Formats: sequence, C-alpha cells, structure tokens
Amino acid sequence: MAPSKISWGARLRPPPPPISKSDHEFLQMGLEFMSSRDGIRVSELNELFDKVGFPRRDPERLKVALDNTHRLVWVRATKQSRVARLGQLLGFARATSDGVFTATIWDVAVAPAWQRVGLGRAMMERLTRGLVEDGIPNITLYAEPQTIASC
Amino acid sequence: MAPSKISWGARLRPPPPPISKSDHEFLQMGLEFMSSRDGIRVSELNELFDKVGFPRRDPERLKVALDNTHRLVWVRATKQSRVARLGQLLGFARATSDGVFTATIWDVAVAPAWQRVGLGRAMMERLTRGLVEDGIPNITLYAEPQTIASC
Repeated sequence: MAPSKISWGARLRPPPPPISKSDHEFLQMGLEFMSSRDGIRVSELNELFDKVGFPRRDPERLKVALDNTHRLVWVRATKQSRVARLGQLLGFARATSDGVFTATIWDVAVAPAWQRVGLGRAMMERLTRGLVEDGIPNITLYAEPQTIASC
Repeated sequence: MAPSKISWGARLRPPPPPISKSDHEFLQMGLEFMSSRDGIRVSELNELFDKVGFPRRDPERLKVALDNTHRLVWVRATKQSRVARLGQLLGFARATSDGVFTATIWDVAVAPAWQRVGLGRAMMERLTRGLVEDGIPNITLYAEPQTIASC
C-alpha cells in the first residue's frame, strides 16, 4: 500500500535546477563563483551591502552570521577592468538552513555596475542547486519589495 | 554627525513582544512551555505533524533538523485529562537562524483538541521573545496558506 502522504526526508529529490549560463561563460566576462566563506573580506561585503541599499552590519557579528550560514555563493572579479578591481567582491547570496528540510536565502546583492548581466540569477541557480544537492526540499527567498522589483 | 542608515548589529533592540497569557495561567490549564529539545520524542512530534496535516519526517533527519534549530518551543501536558496524556506533546514551533541577524520560524503546530485556546499565539510570543533577546532583528514566519487560515 502506497503511503497517502509524501514523507519529507524520504529521498524524493527533484532534479537540480538548470544553470542558464555556464561558469565558463562568466569566466570569460571576468567573473568567478566562489562557495567558501574563506576569502570574503567582511569590510568589502559591507561595501557591497551599502551600494545596493542594505544596511552595513557590525563586522564581528557579520562574521558570526557567515559562520552560521549553511551555504553561500559570492562572485569575484578575475580581471582588472574599468568596473572592477582584480579580486573584487561583486555579488553575494547566502542561505541559512537546518541542513535537512528547510532553507532561507538572504542578502542577495549584486554590485550596481554588474546588474542586468544575469549575475543575480546565476547566483540563485548555484545556491539552490547546492541546497537541492543537500536534499533540502523547502527553499524560500527573503527579499525586501524594492529588491524584488530590481531583480 | 548621525549616520543616515540604521546599522544592523548595533544594539538597537526593540522591547520584547508582550506575553498575552502568562505561564502561570497555562499551567492552570495543565500546559507547560519547554524550550529545550531534550525530552522531545521524535515519534510524538511526527504524530503531532500528522494530526495538523504536515507530512511526517524521517526520524533521523528530523533529529538533525532539531539539532540545527536555533530556538524551539514546545508544550507538554502537565495533567492527565480527556484530551491529553500526562507529558503529551501538544504544540511545537521552531526557528532556524544565523544567530545574529535573521531567523525563520517553521513548523508551528498545535494539536487539534487544543486549538483556539491561544496556544499558537503563546508559542509565537515566547519564541519571538527569545529571538529578540538574542538580538535578532529580522524574524519571518514560514507557513502554508491553510495554516495561516487556521491560526
């Protein structure tokens, strides 16, 4: 007899979401996706938050928040250019989670000079792909109304 | 010069939310609020989820999720009665969090026989009070539409 309800936690994994633009394509644009918190400078992350209209955060507390973040993705510039320093943090997104059932995505930010090239979408695709690979079925996004409007 | 933006992480703590019905009043009803995961039986939690229409979860994965939960509140029966066994789990709610800036409340459940006595509200008040005391300024609730309707 088949169970009448789907059990969370059973291995009912949906396929990972598609990636609309490859890492290789972004590399050609001078952009690289990073998934480790190592290498993120909190001061630079605060600069990015400031540029997109998010409040700056206390640096020590921001470090704790990153440590308690289940997954994150950030984008760094692999080329020096008119709109980026070499290594500059140009995009960021992170997800808190119980590691099993639920995750919430917060702090999705793309530097204004790099908006409208698909970077926000690319970060979301990579972040949700990671969460789906972790077996997490319930993923939500937290965003302020003006953030949604600018996506 | 005053900063033009409010900095998250500064000690700008709002007062904790009011408690509309005291622990003492609930004790007189035979109900006690617990904030430790110790003493929760996962099988009983799954029974509660089932009663309110949530899917049952894999027990081992549910334990991991509880371990990765920042704060939780649950309600146990302190009196044997027609509608409760002594010690029975009658309500539950939990919050994931980065411990600093953001928290999401999930899995708010009240046993049907104990709905409409203010138990859901009481759990939310105690859970959000704890999160506010942790200094977390951004608290969201995840709920299915039918859950909202039955609150």
